[in-house]
Amino acid sequence: MSITTPKGFVASGLASGIKASGGMDLALLATDDGAAVPTAATFTTNLAAAAPVQVSRGHLAASGQRAAAVIVSSGNANAATGDRGRADAHRMCSLVASGLGAPAEQILVCSTGLIGIPLPMGPIESGIPQLVAARSGSPDAAADAAQGILTTDSGRKEVLVEHATFAVAGMAKGAGMLAPDMATMLAFLTTDAQVEPGPLDELLRIAVRESFNSMSVDGCTSTNDTVVLMASGRAGPVDPNVVVDAVTEACASLCSQMMADAEGASRMFQVRVTGARSDGEAHRAARQVADSLLVKCSINGEDAYWGRVASDLGSAGVGFDMERLAISYGGVTVCRDGVAVAHDPDALARHMAGPLVDIHCQLGLADGNGVVMGVDLGYGYIDENRTTS
Amino acid sequence: MSITTPKGFVASGLASGIKASGGMDLALLATDDGAAVPTAATFTTNLAAAAPVQVSRGHLAASGQRAAAVIVSSGNANAATGDRGRADAHRMCSLVASGLGAPAEQILVCSTGLIGIPLPMGPIESGIPQLVAARSGSPDAAADAAQGILTTDSGRKEVLVEHATFAVAGMAKGAGMLAPDMATMLAFLTTDAQVEPGPLDELLRIAVRESFNSMSVDGCTSTNDTVVLMASGRAGPVDPNVVVDAVTEACASLCSQMMADAEGASRMFQVRVTGARSDGEAHRAARQVADSLLVKCSINGEDAYWGRVASDLGSAGVGFDMERLAISYGGVTVCRDGVAVAHDPDALARHMAGPLVDIHCQLGLADGNGVVMGVDLGYGYIDENRTTS
Repeated sequence: MSITTPKGFVASGLASGIKASGGMDLALLATDDGAAVPTAATFTTNLAAAAPVQVSRGHLAASGQRAAAVIVSSGNANAATGDRGRADAHRMCSLVASGLGAPAEQILVCSTGLIGIPLPMGPIESGIPQLVAARSGSPDAAADAAQGILTTDSGRKEVLVEHATFAVAGMAKGAGMLAPDMATMLAFLTTDAQVEPGPLDELLRIAVRESFNSMSVDGCTSTNDTVVLMASGRAGPVDPNVVVDAVTEACASLCSQMMADAEGASRMFQVRVTGARSDGEAHRAARQVADSLLVKCSINGEDAYWGRVASDLGSAGVGFDMERLAISYGGVTVCRDGVAVAHDPDALARHMAGPLVDIHCQLGLADGNGVVMGVDLGYGYIDENRTTS
Repeated sequence: MSITTPKGFVASGLASGIKASGGMDLALLATDDGAAVPTAATFTTNLAAAAPVQVSRGHLAASGQRAAAVIVSSGNANAATGDRGRADAHRMCSLVASGLGAPAEQILVCSTGLIGIPLPMGPIESGIPQLVAARSGSPDAAADAAQGILTTDSGRKEVLVEHATFAVAGMAKGAGMLAPDMATMLAFLTTDAQVEPGPLDELLRIAVRESFNSMSVDGCTSTNDTVVLMASGRAGPVDPNVVVDAVTEACASLCSQMMADAEGASRMFQVRVTGARSDGEAHRAARQVADSLLVKCSINGEDAYWGRVASDLGSAGVGFDMERLAISYGGVTVCRDGVAVAHDPDALARHMAGPLVDIHCQLGLADGNGVVMGVDLGYGYIDENRTTS
């Protein structure tokens, strides 16, 4: 599987010297002919958005939602770097644009790593021309690109979803802020389905809502989070309703890979809320539970302490009636009508010891549904995050 | 110092058998003559409010904001216990009312401990009459009461603020959800100042906002949190503006004692936000930073990683302009105009190694101010919270 499997894309990656470790730190994803194709992106909602996010937003608007390439650097976030940071992000786009013979506003840029330190432009100035020259549709080049975007990740995160007439591929870095020294969640997706910019934007938003925006590691929102989807059109027109399923499937796979790679986490859990007044309230309630430190600690300790779940639901700011609440873990109901009910403790213990804990909260009010995924909180999270050195 | 120092109050505490440990688990605070006095209370905003919170709210409304006593049990929260829980809470009030010769609606009730388990009424039925009989204005009786409300606390939390003409005393339990198996924060305050119910309610709300509502341990809101202030009037009329300062001082002291007792915490920190569009936005921004797991981990590691602070401010949902942001730790400015500035690393390291880290965020927009206190996140928090056993 590779980001260049959908027809019309090339990629490359290399170690330019940004990272003290000497690891790969630059990646390029581009169309094979340098022409701009319909491209959708979602960016962090953080008002402290990093320079590359600001520049990419501007480019996407100026180009009418089309891009010829994305340039990515890892090891430094180029965030909280002011005017200099914006100039550096623009320079990265210009270097790629010159190499491809494309206008600079058709180039998107992403960075990930430490905040508040200016980008080391020396390595980048010499690295980007080599990176452009090395671009190729080969699996090796795609693997280099998938490697070049990583920071504290334990390995590459890639996905390929193939349909009879088209394909969707993706690569990602991050663990949903679980390795927050290198805070960002980045994902890049390609498809050869032909979809116009408007529908492409719409379907990416749906896929992101159903996948990345339903993860909870520590509830923080990075300054650099970005998801980009490029559509080459080489496979011809495809019903956007079909494409959205494939893109959502690809995003969900990348999410699972990120959650599984979360340092300090020993198991995943999902919070399913049903019976809320609306889907929006169900999602909000599920997120409150999934973000809860107390719940995360309980999952770490294999303890089905549903009182904490009830307390989090009651403080989620959504419609809630304790007397209608039911809670189950892995299908074992522990609370009904807001009070404890007799259950099989062995079945419960077996479920809590498994790799994926399922917490189902039935609010009993209406038919709103929502799911948020989470990981437990253990020593490893603290070890990873207590210092940046 | 004791909760019975202000004139007109008696107290008692004993071990009834609710706690398997055999520790003190019942406490009574009452007027010395059994008459109701002006009483103000603030309760948790959690919609899963426990039975004693529901009953106390009703009693306070029915009695015109007057109470003759507060009965407290520890070791079991009487939360998520449905109709039975409400009946048990009412029964606790009735038992005290009979003993004092007061109407049941003049009795408030609080419980703290595990959620979802019915109260063991046997020990309570036999304990409360003994508790009422043991009530006294002596320091020993007051110490027993302060002991009887504790759960995982390492010791009693008491305060006394004395003015020329009146006094304010308090006792509390909890560590702001830091020992969430025994989740609740409870505080009881007495004064002999004469203040009518309306002004008393208003001044308690001010004091709580400036103290308990400016703490952050893990961002969770308990099902049982309660603060009660009783005013005997024995010292005669006092300007409420003078009383509010004394009550705020007492609450602040109880907060500090709770934060200092937070299991797993090695140091405290305060987030001061200035220059926000309003005091409300400043407080919201300060809370976002203080609640941040990444910031809490940084404080644990003595790491002044201000990029995380900027990221949290940017996602707090308040007015924010990165280019106007300045951040300092203990007076050492590390970020100005949204970018890193040169500073003395030794002075910074000395401050970060101290017992109280001061983080000052100047947003540069207007003149809104707010402060939230927090504790760091270490192994101890996980150890304390991963299982309820």
